[in-house]
Amino acid sequence: MPSHPGGGTRLDPWFGAYAARTHGLRVSETRALFAVANRPEVVSLAGGMPFLDALPMDIIAKVTSDLVAAEGTVALQYGNGQGHPRMREQIAEVMAVESIAAHPDDVVVTTGSQQALDLVTRVFVDPDDVVLAEAPSYVGALSVFKSYQAWVEHVPMDGDGLIPEALTEAIARLRAAGRRIKFLYTVPSFHNPAGVTQPLERRAAILDICQSNGILVVEDNPYGMLAFDGTVTPAIRSMDGDGVIYLGSFSKTLAPGYRVGWAVAPHAVREKLVLASEASILCPSQASQLSIAAYLEAEDWLGQIGVYRLAYKERCDAMLGALQEHMPECSWTKPAGGFYTWVTVPEGINTKAMLPRATTALVAYVSGVAFYADGQGGRQMRLSFCYPTPERIREGVRRLAGVLAKEIELIELFGPHGRELSGEGDVQAPAPDLA
Amino acid sequence: MPSHPGGGTRLDPWFGAYAARTHGLRVSETRALFAVANRPEVVSLAGGMPFLDALPMDIIAKVTSDLVAAEGTVALQYGNGQGHPRMREQIAEVMAVESIAAHPDDVVVTTGSQQALDLVTRVFVDPDDVVLAEAPSYVGALSVFKSYQAWVEHVPMDGDGLIPEALTEAIARLRAAGRRIKFLYTVPSFHNPAGVTQPLERRAAILDICQSNGILVVEDNPYGMLAFDGTVTPAIRSMDGDGVIYLGSFSKTLAPGYRVGWAVAPHAVREKLVLASEASILCPSQASQLSIAAYLEAEDWLGQIGVYRLAYKERCDAMLGALQEHMPECSWTKPAGGFYTWVTVPEGINTKAMLPRATTALVAYVSGVAFYADGQGGRQMRLSFCYPTPERIREGVRRLAGVLAKEIELIELFGPHGRELSGEGDVQAPAPDLA
Repeated sequence: MPSHPGGGTRLDPWFGAYAARTHGLRVSETRALFAVANRPEVVSLAGGMPFLDALPMDIIAKVTSDLVAAEGTVALQYGNGQGHPRMREQIAEVMAVESIAAHPDDVVVTTGSQQALDLVTRVFVDPDDVVLAEAPSYVGALSVFKSYQAWVEHVPMDGDGLIPEALTEAIARLRAAGRRIKFLYTVPSFHNPAGVTQPLERRAAILDICQSNGILVVEDNPYGMLAFDGTVTPAIRSMDGDGVIYLGSFSKTLAPGYRVGWAVAPHAVREKLVLASEASILCPSQASQLSIAAYLEAEDWLGQIGVYRLAYKERCDAMLGALQEHMPECSWTKPAGGFYTWVTVPEGINTKAMLPRATTALVAYVSGVAFYADGQGGRQMRLSFCYPTPERIREGVRRLAGVLAKEIELIELFGPHGRELSGEGDVQAPAPDLA
Repeated sequence: MPSHPGGGTRLDPWFGAYAARTHGLRVSETRALFAVANRPEVVSLAGGMPFLDALPMDIIAKVTSDLVAAEGTVALQYGNGQGHPRMREQIAEVMAVESIAAHPDDVVVTTGSQQALDLVTRVFVDPDDVVLAEAPSYVGALSVFKSYQAWVEHVPMDGDGLIPEALTEAIARLRAAGRRIKFLYTVPSFHNPAGVTQPLERRAAILDICQSNGILVVEDNPYGMLAFDGTVTPAIRSMDGDGVIYLGSFSKTLAPGYRVGWAVAPHAVREKLVLASEASILCPSQASQLSIAAYLEAEDWLGQIGVYRLAYKERCDAMLGALQEHMPECSWTKPAGGFYTWVTVPEGINTKAMLPRATTALVAYVSGVAFYADGQGGRQMRLSFCYPTPERIREGVRRLAGVLAKEIELIELFGPHGRELSGEGDVQAPAPDLA
C-alpha cells in the first residue's frame, strides 16, 4: 500500500466496489526500480524510448507553430472519432512502404497503438477467451489482455519468430479442450522483446494456419521500418485484408509524445473499433494528428527514419560487441533492426532476483518474466539499445557483466536461487517506459 | 450496413467472434444526420464545440513552438502513466478556483475527461451493475456505461438539478430489488444537456445521501468555470475527498483538440485508475500536456476564460430571446452558464422524428432521446449556443420554429406521431461533436 500524502497508509474504502477485472490490476514490482533506473547515474538498458535527439526539432517547432497560427480553430477543436482524413491518408501512404494497400477509410487513428490494442481486445475478448501470443510477448499487450480477463497462451519462437508447427499444435490442443480462441497477437518484425523477425515465408505460413482455422491475426508492427539495412519485409496485412488487423504507430518512427497510432481492420470490425473508441475517448487529438501531418508534408520523413536506423544500428553493434566481450557465458539474439536484444543467462541465475543488485550497480534492464503471462522468463532479460549512447551502452554492459559474475560466484558457492526459480505468477501493468 | 470502398456491402465474417459487450455497440442513427448538419449552410445547434476564435492563437503558436525548440526531447517523448508532474500541479491550481484542495499526486491526467469516465467505469462496473445518472444525462457517459454493460437508472431533476428525494427513493427501490449500485454520475454545473445547476445546499444534500448509503459520487464538471456572471459554485469534491471522484477537462475552458482531461480520486482508487490507463494508452500525450502547461504559465488563463464566458452569455441571450420570440409554445431551461438549453416541445411532437425535417430546413439539434438509456426524451431537444454566432443562432431558431409550426399543423390534421412516441430503445455511441 503506497503512503498517502495526507499521512500514513490506509485501507481502501472502495475495495468491495471494484469490478472483477480490477482485482487483476496490480502495481508492477519493477515500478519502484524504474524510478531508480531513471536516475541519470544509472545506465538504463530497460526502456523503449526512441532517440529523439536525432529529430529536427527546429523544423517540428516551425510546422507546429504555423499549424496553430493558420489553422488553430481546426487543430485545437474536437475531431472525427475515426481520425482526421488528412492523417488517415498519410497513414495509408506510410503503410504502402510495407506493401500494404489500405484505403484511408479502413484506418482508425488511436491514442498510440496501445489504445488500438485495447480497442481490439475490448471488441473481441470475453473473460476466459484465449489470446495466442508469442513466447515471450510485449509486456504492454499482456497488460491489456489481462485487464480484459483473457487467457494468454504462449506459442514458442525460434530465430525466425513464431514457430508455425507450434501454432498448429496450440490451436488443436486448445480447441480439443473446448477453449474459445479469439486472435493471434504477433509482432513480426524486430520483435519486442525477442529481437527476431519473421521472414516472408514464415509470415505466409502463420497466416495460412490462422486462415484455415478461422482465427483473426492481430499484427503489431511499430518497428517494421527500422531495419538496420533499410529492407522492409512486407507486412502480414499485405497478404490478407479480411483476416488481419494491423496496428501501426508513429511512436518509434517519429515520436511517442504525440500518442498517435492506428489500426487497419476489416471493414465491419473497423466500424466496431470506431464506436468503441468514441465511447472511450470521443476522438483522438486533432492537435497531435495535424502536427504529425504537417511534419510529414514538410519533411523527408523516410530519410529521417534512415537517420534513426543508422543510429540504432550503431547502438546495436555497440551492445552486441560488448556482450561478446564481457558476457560470453550468456547467449543473445542478433537483431537486424528495432530496439532490443533478448539475453539468456547461465542456468541457476534468475534475472528478476538479480535486478535490484543490478540497479545498485547502476545498470537497469527488464527481467524476462515481465514478458510472459505464465511465469517463464527467469533466465532471460531484455536489453534495449535505443536510448543510451554507444559509449553508455558499453559501460552498461560492463556493469551488468560485473553483477552477473558475482551472481555466478554466489551460485558456485551456495547453489542456484531457490524461490525465484519457481513460477513468477502474474504479469503486472507496465511502466510507460517499458514500451 | 455501410458500403465498402472496395464496392458493395458485405457480411461481417468476424461477427461470431465479438465479445458480449460489443453487440451493444451500434452506429448512431443521428450520425448520418450529423454529416449533413456539418455542412456550412446548416445552422448547427447540435454540437458541443467551444468557440475557439476567442483564443489567442498567436500566443499559443509561440509557446508551443518554444516548447518544442527548447524541450522537444522531453515534450515528444513517452511520459508518466499518471501524467506529467508539471501538468498535475497546474491542474491542482485550476481546481482551487472551485474550492477543491487536491494534491497533484491525486490527479490522473487522461485523454479528455471521456477517458477518465471510461477508466472509472472500467474499474468499478461489472455487467448489470447499476449506475445512477440524472434524467437526462450526458450522451457520452451513457455510451461508456453501456459499453461496460451497466444498467443506467435515471433519477429525475428539477430546475436545481438532481432531486435528493428521488435519489433516496431510487437507491431504496434498487437495493430492495437486490441490485448492486456502483456510483452516482452527476454533472452539477450547467448540466449537459439540461442546462441547470445544483445550488450548494443541493450538492450537500446529494453528497449526504450518497455518503450514508456508501455510494461513490462521480462528479463530471467540464463547465463549472463557465458561469455567465463569473460565480463559481464549490464542487462536490470540495466537501469530501474520500467519497467523490472528480472529473475535469481543458476541452471547454481552453481547447478540446489537445484531449487533456483528468480525474481526482481517493488515493487507492487513483492507483487503480493509473494502472487501467497504462493498460489502455500507456501514458497521456506529453506534447499536449506540456503545450497546455506552457500556455497556462504564459497567459492570464483565468482572464481568457472570462472572454469565453462573455461570448457564451451573449449567445445564450440570443438563443433564449429567439425562443421567446419564435417558439412560445415550447418551454426551456434558463442556463446561468455552460453551453446548452433543454427545450420541451408541445405534446404530440416527437423530436427524433422531426430531426430529418429540421436538417432539410437547414437547422440541426440533438433529440432528447439521445440523453436517456430508457427511451424517454421524445418531447425534448438539446440546443447548443456555444458555437454559432448570435446572428446565426437567431436564424437557426427561426428555421426551427418554422419546422415546428409545420409539425403542429400536421398533428392538428392527422393526430400525433404514432410509432415515434413509443420507447426509443437503445442509446447509441455518440458522434464526437455531441460532446
